[in-house]
Amino acid sequence: MTASASASSASSAPRPPVGKLLHKGVLRLVLQRPEKMNALSREMMDALAAELTLAGQDPEVRVVLLGAEGKVFCAGHDLKELTAARAESDGGRATYEAILRQCSELMQQIVRLPKPVIAVVTGVATAAGCQLVASCDLALATDTATFCTPGVNIGLFCSTPMVALSRNASPKQAMEMLLTGESIDASTAKSFGLINRIIPADYLDQVVQKYAEVIASKSPLTLKIGKEAFYRQLEMPLAQAYDYAASVMVENMLTRDAEEGITAFLQKRAPEWRGE
Amino acid sequence: MTASASASSASSAPRPPVGKLLHKGVLRLVLQRPEKMNALSREMMDALAAELTLAGQDPEVRVVLLGAEGKVFCAGHDLKELTAARAESDGGRATYEAILRQCSELMQQIVRLPKPVIAVVTGVATAAGCQLVASCDLALATDTATFCTPGVNIGLFCSTPMVALSRNASPKQAMEMLLTGESIDASTAKSFGLINRIIPADYLDQVVQKYAEVIASKSPLTLKIGKEAFYRQLEMPLAQAYDYAASVMVENMLTRDAEEGITAFLQKRAPEWRGE
Amino acid sequence: MTASASASSASSAPRPPVGKLLHKGVLRLVLQRPEKMNALSREMMDALAAELTLAGQDPEVRVVLLGAEGKVFCAGHDLKELTAARAESDGGRATYEAILRQCSELMQQIVRLPKPVIAVVTGVATAAGCQLVASCDLALATDTATFCTPGVNIGLFCSTPMVALSRNASPKQAMEMLLTGESIDASTAKSFGLINRIIPADYLDQVVQKYAEVIASKSPLTLKIGKEAFYRQLEMPLAQAYDYAASVMVENMLTRDAEEGITAFLQKRAPEWRGE
Repeated sequence: MTASASASSASSAPRPPVGKLLHKGVLRLVLQRPEKMNALSREMMDALAAELTLAGQDPEVRVVLLGAEGKVFCAGHDLKELTAARAESDGGRATYEAILRQCSELMQQIVRLPKPVIAVVTGVATAAGCQLVASCDLALATDTATFCTPGVNIGLFCSTPMVALSRNASPKQAMEMLLTGESIDASTAKSFGLINRIIPADYLDQVVQKYAEVIASKSPLTLKIGKEAFYRQLEMPLAQAYDYAASVMVENMLTRDAEEGITAFLQKRAPEWRGE
Repeated sequence: MTASASASSASSAPRPPVGKLLHKGVLRLVLQRPEKMNALSREMMDALAAELTLAGQDPEVRVVLLGAEGKVFCAGHDLKELTAARAESDGGRATYEAILRQCSELMQQIVRLPKPVIAVVTGVATAAGCQLVASCDLALATDTATFCTPGVNIGLFCSTPMVALSRNASPKQAMEMLLTGESIDASTAKSFGLINRIIPADYLDQVVQKYAEVIASKSPLTLKIGKEAFYRQLEMPLAQAYDYAASVMVENMLTRDAEEGITAFLQKRAPEWRGE
Repeated sequence: MTASASASSASSAPRPPVGKLLHKGVLRLVLQRPEKMNALSREMMDALAAELTLAGQDPEVRVVLLGAEGKVFCAGHDLKELTAARAESDGGRATYEAILRQCSELMQQIVRLPKPVIAVVTGVATAAGCQLVASCDLALATDTATFCTPGVNIGLFCSTPMVALSRNASPKQAMEMLLTGESIDASTAKSFGLINRIIPADYLDQVVQKYAEVIASKSPLTLKIGKEAFYRQLEMPLAQAYDYAASVMVENMLTRDAEEGITAFLQKRAPEWRGE
């Protein structure tokens, strides 16, 4: 996925780690450090977190797509950055703490963002890169996408990636990826529940844009209410989840957008959202 | 699915919202307001709750099938009923509270019913109608069945339906239905874990009856013990779930039906259940 | 699966309930009471628990395979043993308590073992035998394997097996097995997430050994850290899971094996694990 129209892609200035392009309410964020396999260096995480914060605040943004340039969607943590920290007086402990907290925070920022975030994966999603896909609300991929959590191969179990992975795939499916470190293809990822759809590469941009516009056409307030409630109720026992969800739905019913939406439906016309 | 032999289907009297027919321990409950798309109006919810209560108490009823007349299995809440309440002095809040509590209670009544409840879906199951399917212990469908949670299209996120849906499908699968509002077919619903089997429409009644009779032939006491324990242990951490389930199984072993069942098995004869 | 080279298979002495064979870090444990359908009698559970304890302590053992001789992988509890206990003064209660606690403990011993445990199923896995498969970290099977939880047929709901089963399959999938008591084939078990792979019977031993050796080649310390963290975080809410997993990963980064693994990777050579 590219964000070629981004103002920041002018050849004279260095491109920022994350490109962006807004079109019809759909914001494309693109990891654009293909030469570094789009690794989640601290710089990359800072940039992505900043863009997500802006996206959350910008009323023009209804849906966020998260893609990447090059054959590697995201290779996870920057191993050279991790290795360099070993020279520090505490052997790197403080730096590792900071990096892993920052990364975990970034993943939860996606979950907490009041707008849907859709991963668009055309290449290799590895370790924290696989976690990034798992952390998005939805995920689309081409059949060239692959997914793995290969930390076990380098003595560093993918413990934070597995938090997101094991909330998508079933335990044995997640465990096989974690214990063998081997890749799965897009078709397997779909059967695991890690991605939603496999899209032909030739039509990727059009299909993805259209898919996102369907969601962007909904009331932003309704999407915000629903997304937040989804993840909250998921962690509750059944009776508590119903109590909570019923309260959410009563408040939702009393919003202007629900009144407009239901009225428009009964009148067989298109609704006009105001986000209130 | 029809309940044509129901006493209540005489042409002179208005048919009740829910028809019923008991055959060989299998009770068919049938939503029979096809002209109202079997919407969960307060009247429909009252009627269904009352029938479920009776089914729970009637020793002749071993298994409950939940089907519907017409092309729409159930369209969810009655939007006209919801809209009418806006004219109330509090803008509808008290009515919405009451309706959503009643609906959540109905769904949990299915989960708590001491007998297996099997949805039989041949048409469109929408919003709270999809929730109804998700809330049943098992679900059978023809390939004409479709499922969706389209509240987002009318500004009213399917927040209570998602409680049940997200306990069947994986997070991204549920989220795609919730955020896009689009329908899935029976085959996709099966891959999501939302339904168990797809049955050819021509043989539906026979296959469903036979499927239910297999379960109806078990000890009702054993089914009661097992169903209750299933949902309770599902919400516990592993060690606690084992403690609880082991206690349940010890008590189960000491019932007369377990003694009879094991003895009959070792003697290679059919067991005779007494439900004690 | 056989453990034919086991010292204990000499014809003069009675074979122990569980055979074993260690090859290249892969320990094969084999239930070898085919004439008793490898039932989990107290003797069998004692033997298996003892072997698992030894496997956990033996640094030569990197991965454990759990297979069985004969057409029945494991038939669950020993019904004759259960029935005999009815003659006891308390009707068997104390014995049932002891057997079910022992069995639940055995299943959790697999989960807590600091080494991956892989079920290898070529025959019928029933009741607690199905639970045994579900309790392993991974499971491989031939297309001759079948799985069922048929307790409901004998008046004794598979309440402890369902603890493990319902943590592999989705609720409706698990419920169908529990309520009908019917068997599923290997292909269905794979779609449920109960097994990882279906392997042609003719190549079983080679493929399984190779699959296990891939895992056995990883740092045993990393596997230990990762497996423990996997099951712990799975029971936590998202934010707590991330806090915990980030801490685990910081400690993992500071191990010698992670340093060696990352260095070897960057130097494009094979790592040498020391398990520290």
